[in-house]
Amino acid sequence: MQSKRWLLPEGVQEMVPPESWRLESARRQLLDLYWRWGYDLIRPPLIEYLESLLTGAGHELDLQTFKLTDQLNGRMMGVRSDMTTQATRIDAHRLQAVGPARYCYIGSILRTRPEEPGGSRSPLQLGAEKFGDAHIESDLEIVSLMLETLALMGIDNACLDLGHVAIYRRLVQCAGVTPDFEPVLFDVVQRKSRPDLDSLRAAGRIDERAHAWFSQLIDFNGPASVLADARASLAGIDAEIDAALTRLDEMVALLAAHYPDMPVFLDLAELRGYRYKTGLLYAAFAPGLGRELARGGRYDDVGAAFGRPRPATGFSADLNLLAALGSFDSLERQGGIHAPAGADAELLASIRHLRAQGERVIVATPGADEEVGSGCDRALAYVDGRWDVRPL
Amino acid sequence: MQSKRWLLPEGVQEMVPPESWRLESARRQLLDLYWRWGYDLIRPPLIEYLESLLTGAGHELDLQTFKLTDQLNGRMMGVRSDMTTQATRIDAHRLQAVGPARYCYIGSILRTRPEEPGGSRSPLQLGAEKFGDAHIESDLEIVSLMLETLALMGIDNACLDLGHVAIYRRLVQCAGVTPDFEPVLFDVVQRKSRPDLDSLRAAGRIDERAHAWFSQLIDFNGPASVLADARASLAGIDAEIDAALTRLDEMVALLAAHYPDMPVFLDLAELRGYRYKTGLLYAAFAPGLGRELARGGRYDDVGAAFGRPRPATGFSADLNLLAALGSFDSLERQGGIHAPAGADAELLASIRHLRAQGERVIVATPGADEEVGSGCDRALAYVDGRWDVRPL
Repeated sequence: MQSKRWLLPEGVQEMVPPESWRLESARRQLLDLYWRWGYDLIRPPLIEYLESLLTGAGHELDLQTFKLTDQLNGRMMGVRSDMTTQATRIDAHRLQAVGPARYCYIGSILRTRPEEPGGSRSPLQLGAEKFGDAHIESDLEIVSLMLETLALMGIDNACLDLGHVAIYRRLVQCAGVTPDFEPVLFDVVQRKSRPDLDSLRAAGRIDERAHAWFSQLIDFNGPASVLADARASLAGIDAEIDAALTRLDEMVALLAAHYPDMPVFLDLAELRGYRYKTGLLYAAFAPGLGRELARGGRYDDVGAAFGRPRPATGFSADLNLLAALGSFDSLERQGGIHAPAGADAELLASIRHLRAQGERVIVATPGADEEVGSGCDRALAYVDGRWDVRPL
Repeated sequence: MQSKRWLLPEGVQEMVPPESWRLESARRQLLDLYWRWGYDLIRPPLIEYLESLLTGAGHELDLQTFKLTDQLNGRMMGVRSDMTTQATRIDAHRLQAVGPARYCYIGSILRTRPEEPGGSRSPLQLGAEKFGDAHIESDLEIVSLMLETLALMGIDNACLDLGHVAIYRRLVQCAGVTPDFEPVLFDVVQRKSRPDLDSLRAAGRIDERAHAWFSQLIDFNGPASVLADARASLAGIDAEIDAALTRLDEMVALLAAHYPDMPVFLDLAELRGYRYKTGLLYAAFAPGLGRELARGGRYDDVGAAFGRPRPATGFSADLNLLAALGSFDSLERQGGIHAPAGADAELLASIRHLRAQGERVIVATPGADEEVGSGCDRALAYVDGRWDVRPL
C-alpha cells in the first residue's frame, strides 16, 4: 500500500479548501474581536530554550513538550506546547507594561501526546491573557471574551464550568498530606474515584477527616447550588478555602448578571492546570462533546520566575476544534472570472483593474480547460472592441 | 545575569505590537492577493513522518530538518523546513485535481541552521505553487505573483535573477563527471571559485574541456546580454542545454514585455535547490541586501514519489523578512474608547454596540489608570442621562 506511506502522524491535521479559507476567516474575525476588546496581538516564538519555555509551568507541560537540540550550541530547546508561559515571559521580561496589560495570540503548538483519546497533537492555539489585576472583574473579562469567542464561532450551546484550585490545595495542607504522597491523592481526586479514596483510608494513607473532605470535594459537582453545600461542609476549616468559596459565589453572581441564559456548573475537584494555576478555574463545554471547548484560569505571580510577579488570568482554545464544531460565517471565497492568456496591454490592464477591485481573475493555462474546475462563473471576453466580463 | 537566561535561540524571533499587527495585516493582504490570482489556500501540517516530509527533497533539506520521535509508535518525524514538498504531496496524493492547480500557503517553518550568517531559523514562509502545466506561461505567472508580493509589501527596488539547472546538469553529464566527484565540483561552481577549478584541472579531476566549460559557466553572470555569450560558447554541446538557453531567452522577452522597468540578471551558475529543481530558477533581490527576498523555480515530476508526476513551478519567501524591509500600509490599529467598569445594562449595551461597529473599547480595570497607557483617545461617559463618547 503506497498510500499508507503518506499518512500523517496521529492527531496531526492538514487543511485544504474550503476548510482552510474558513479557518483563515475565523482567525481574522477572532483577532479583530480581541482587538476591539483591547487585547494586543503577540507572536511568541515556535521554539525556545527549555528553561524559558518550561519555567513555572510544571511537570505536565514538560512531558507534553517535544525536545530539540540546538545544533549551534548543543543546548536543549522545546517546541511550544502551550503559549501561556510564553505570554507570561513576554509580559514580565520583554514588554514590562506599567499597569494592566492585555495580550492575545494565535499559533500552532505541538504536544507529544493528545490530551484525550482522538485529540489533537497540533492544535491551533488561540488565547487571551490579562496581566496586572487581581480583581474578579478581570476574570469576568476573560470569561466574557471566551464566551464571545464561542459565540462568534457559531457555537451557541456552550455551558460553563467553574472551579478554584485553592480549595483542594488548602485541604491537602490541612490534612497534612506529604509532598511525595500528594500526587497519588491528586490522581485519585482528578479521577473522582471514591473506591480509591476508600482504599487510601483503609491503607492508612489518609485519615478519617481527610477521607471525608476529599470524598465531599468529589461530590461538589453540579449546578451553582453546590456552593451552598460546600460552604456547609468546608466553611471554617481554613481562611483561604472560605475566600475561594466567596470568590466562586461572586463569580456565579456576576455571570448571572452578565449572561443570564448561560448554564453555569461548579466542579470543585476539577484541577486542570493545578500545578500552574492559583485561583479561579473556568472551562467552556458543549453538552455531549466530552471535551472542553476552551479553558482558563488565574495564575498570579507565575511571572516571578521571569523577574516580575503580577496577577494574571487568561483562557485558551484550539481554533481547529472550534472551527470544526462552529457554524460561523466564512469569508466569501467563491466565483471568479476566467481570462485568456496573452500579453495584450489592454487585456493585462483589464485583469489588473478587476483584481484591484477585489475580483478573482484566473488566467487561462495554455491547452487546459479550466473554466469549470477553477470555479469561475464569468469570463473576460473581447467584444465590440473592448474587454468585457460576461457570464459563463 | 538573570536576563541572559531568557534569550531566544539564535535566528528565532518573537513579535509584539505594533510589528505583530503589521505582520497580521501583511498576511491578510497577501492571502487576499493570492486568492484574487486563483491560488487556493492550503495548510500543510507542522510535522510529518520523515519519509513523507523529505521525499524527493534531497540531502540539503534533510540536514535543515529538526527530527522528533513520535512517542506513540517510535517513528521519526520532522518539523517542516520547507513547505514546497508538502504542497507537492497534497497536490499529488490528497487533492488530485484534474488539470492545473494553484495553491498558496503561509506558516512557520524551522531550520536547524540559518541559511546565511544572521539569517532566520524560524521564517514565516509564504509561497505559491502551480501544478499541472509545463508551459513558460506558468513560470511567468509565478514570477509575476512573486513580484506582486514584493510590490504589495512596499519593496519597490527589487531586481530579478534567472538561471536554469539543466545547463550545469548537462555539462556534468557531457564532461563525464562521476556521481561521487560531482558534489565537489558543485561546491566549487556554487562558490564561483576559479582558483579551485584550476586546482581540479591541475589534479586531473577534470579535463581541459570541462575546465573551460565550468570556468565560462561561472562567468555567465550579469545582464541579459550574457545569454548571447553563453549561446556562443555552449550551443551545440547538448540539445537540453540549447533548450534551456532558449527557455531563458523566452523568459527574458516575456519579462521585458510584462515588466519593462524590472532589472533582470542572468546567473547560470546559480543552482539553489539544484537537487530538487528541474528547470528555470528565479530569485528576487534587493540591491545591497545580500540575500534573496524570494525565490523559486520549476520542479517537474517531483510528485512522482507521491504517486503522481506533474509539471510544477512555484516561489516562496519569508514574510518576517519582507515585513521588516517593506514599507506597506498596515491595518489601522490605533485609538480606542475607555469605558468604566460596571454591570449597568445601558453601559453594557453601549459597549456592545460600539464594538459591533468596529470600535475598540477598553473597560476600566478597578483601581488602575489606563486611560493613557491603553492608547485610548476617547472615553464613554454618562452625560445628561445617557452614555456618550467624548474626546479624552
